[in-house]
Amino acid sequence: MTVLDRLTTDLGDLVDTRPETLELARADKSGHAAPGRPIAVVHAETVAHVQTVMRIATETRTPVVVRGAGTGLAGAANGGEGEIVLSTGRMTAIHEIRADDLLAVVEPGILNADLNDALAEHGLWWAPDPASRAISTVGGNIATGAGGLLCAKYGVVRDAVLGVDLVLSDGRLLHLGHRSVKGVTGLDLTSLVIGSEGTLGVVVGATLKLRRLVEGETCTITATFPDVRTAAAASAAVTASGTQPAIMELMDAASLAAVASMLELPAPAPGSAQLTIQTDGPAAVAEAAVIAAILEAHDGVTQVSSDREEGERLLAIRRSTHPAMSALGTTLIEDVSVPRSAMPAMFDEIARIEKTYGITIPTVAHAGDGNLHPNFIFEGAEPPALIWAAADELFRAAIALGGTLTGEHGIGTLKSRWLADELGDDQWELQRQITRVFDPLGILNPGKVFAADA
Amino acid sequence: MTVLDRLTTDLGDLVDTRPETLELARADKSGHAAPGRPIAVVHAETVAHVQTVMRIATETRTPVVVRGAGTGLAGAANGGEGEIVLSTGRMTAIHEIRADDLLAVVEPGILNADLNDALAEHGLWWAPDPASRAISTVGGNIATGAGGLLCAKYGVVRDAVLGVDLVLSDGRLLHLGHRSVKGVTGLDLTSLVIGSEGTLGVVVGATLKLRRLVEGETCTITATFPDVRTAAAASAAVTASGTQPAIMELMDAASLAAVASMLELPAPAPGSAQLTIQTDGPAAVAEAAVIAAILEAHDGVTQVSSDREEGERLLAIRRSTHPAMSALGTTLIEDVSVPRSAMPAMFDEIARIEKTYGITIPTVAHAGDGNLHPNFIFEGAEPPALIWAAADELFRAAIALGGTLTGEHGIGTLKSRWLADELGDDQWELQRQITRVFDPLGILNPGKVFAADA
Repeated sequence: MTVLDRLTTDLGDLVDTRPETLELARADKSGHAAPGRPIAVVHAETVAHVQTVMRIATETRTPVVVRGAGTGLAGAANGGEGEIVLSTGRMTAIHEIRADDLLAVVEPGILNADLNDALAEHGLWWAPDPASRAISTVGGNIATGAGGLLCAKYGVVRDAVLGVDLVLSDGRLLHLGHRSVKGVTGLDLTSLVIGSEGTLGVVVGATLKLRRLVEGETCTITATFPDVRTAAAASAAVTASGTQPAIMELMDAASLAAVASMLELPAPAPGSAQLTIQTDGPAAVAEAAVIAAILEAHDGVTQVSSDREEGERLLAIRRSTHPAMSALGTTLIEDVSVPRSAMPAMFDEIARIEKTYGITIPTVAHAGDGNLHPNFIFEGAEPPALIWAAADELFRAAIALGGTLTGEHGIGTLKSRWLADELGDDQWELQRQITRVFDPLGILNPGKVFAADA
Repeated sequence: MTVLDRLTTDLGDLVDTRPETLELARADKSGHAAPGRPIAVVHAETVAHVQTVMRIATETRTPVVVRGAGTGLAGAANGGEGEIVLSTGRMTAIHEIRADDLLAVVEPGILNADLNDALAEHGLWWAPDPASRAISTVGGNIATGAGGLLCAKYGVVRDAVLGVDLVLSDGRLLHLGHRSVKGVTGLDLTSLVIGSEGTLGVVVGATLKLRRLVEGETCTITATFPDVRTAAAASAAVTASGTQPAIMELMDAASLAAVASMLELPAPAPGSAQLTIQTDGPAAVAEAAVIAAILEAHDGVTQVSSDREEGERLLAIRRSTHPAMSALGTTLIEDVSVPRSAMPAMFDEIARIEKTYGITIPTVAHAGDGNLHPNFIFEGAEPPALIWAAADELFRAAIALGGTLTGEHGIGTLKSRWLADELGDDQWELQRQITRVFDPLGILNPGKVFAADA
């Protein structure tokens, strides 16, 4: 009996082999696709379905790619030739919302935005807010260790998960973590699973750490600068001032122009860059005033608004970056993160690389936490050698500034060639051995993260 | 050549075999001691010293117990017969303090309080504040995943470490984590090391995530209640109200009486319990008023002070609990943590166990995060069977309420008998296999955490 026969025998209609489904499962939002088509997409609806898939995969030594909404940007959820794609997208239940204990217990397939809509009715929210929040799943957010716009003040996924339920490669179910605020019983496997990109197991449930909705006003400050380095220096000055913006986003001239074109907004002044900053909480108004003064002292032309809708409209410009880039061509999105004081130096490096390679690298940044997204645009499916060379130089520049290869998108297939460069060979091998403890046969997302050629 | 000869040949005066040193290294602040005396205490002063010890240990298959200040409460740093105790207590350097990037790079032996004194000059602090902060090391805080009083608002050690440098059992040095706010390159080994209690490697350096000192007033509220259950219900109501105390400590009648006796304060009313709550930041005064009203609605007799010194004096009572318990006899400190809404139910369970076993269990709690420290007091070095039986029942009650065995003290030797009960056999075995990836020979803290009889 083939793997497909076994899946169909045990799981019936949940096994989807329609060509359009298989084609979709090959690619994520990075624009890159796995070679060949997967055997099937299995739409698990229960933990038992996931366990069944993993048992069959173990018995038949078949690779499994776990997939949420497919909004990843590093290729980690792309399923190809000979692989089973295990989708948790239908597991969308919210089992529990506890305002008194500030936690929720959810299934992995619920969309981040849908969860937050449900939480808002209780005066609560789950802080991680990747730009994809309207279309990405909580399980995918956990698998990638997602970040977002609010991280400097409100943390990343790692700060917002108390526990996960994990199905191992052989189908066994483990309950990792705890429901209490504190807990140090044994090793912290919950944190190990966060950001593990489908290499350790299948997240089938999560206990999330919630916050209460922030009361008070929200102020939004926009500032335009003559060039991106000045904007970066201004943002570093805001961080160093001790104010704590909820959001601080930077857009360079090329990314501003691309978004303006897509949204049919007036074109920005050539070369100009923009910061969009939001303050919230009891000190929102006072902090906004301090921040505006700092920006003006750094040659920024500022506007302050305390209208929430206006604030959302201004941030929508930033959130449109990814589709605007996609409209320009195929995009390789870098995701380097540097210490915040190194932001201006990193923009110098980007300018140098643009000059060296004769290309434009439209860049946006979560300036409050030093996370930059330089975008390499090219024609066709795969980056040409020149783009890889420029990306390589960019990554090495970030490392030299005390930074890291990926702040929030993960390694997947697109960054695996650099993983050992950052970790070092010893740590790379140690990490790979840890994956083998969870997955002795190496059937969980093989070829991703710890790719064999590293 | 014996192990001791090899250590002395390579490390000379750093190798300490004085009887009083060896005797001290057998025990931590739990009052429990390892059987027999260790071979030697090695006072490492550099990373290279640590690597030398680990190379000798690997070549000779000698167990190594890593030790900071020896203030642990679970026996994890106790060194016994046939073991090398590797002390990092002399590695106290602060390599870097960066106010702009909100980070510090330190050696593991620096005391938490000394670090915070140095940081305060820059307007910064490292938030983890175990009750032992004056005498415990940052490395020890990391190894245990320490908590403290401020955790509900300001987080635990896991939330405050960006990276660690780790010497493996064979002497190789790894740099784990990053300097940037975000970073998801590979598996999160930094989090795995936090709370691993010396089973994965020797922490020889740490990059710490800092906060700016909180500006504004600090308000301290004390409230006396007729009994502990009423106090617990009041604290749960404060949490559910949406206010965010920086500190919320609960003391029951027996712990209050013990501290009053030690500090020569007036004896509290029989049966009465106390909450000590601190608010800080821009909303401190407003939150204190809201909280006081909640406490009064829950039969609390409250006092509010906005004098910082008075606040410190009131908290000193809580911080004296551990010495006050030690004065009563040998202490087995439980450290269960439950969801905050389950605090009153957990106190009911403690009362039931007191009645069943005919004992008093003085209990204090970090009520803001649901972390309770019930103290079992007895004569002699080892808990008698009755105390173990009562502790066993207490732990099972916490688990049944959705809680965990240890919120912040760790497993060490004293809790290892229950570890598999909480993790389940599959997860226990998986965790043990992960330790073997770091330490294939099993020479790092054998007999601790994953003790063989589990």
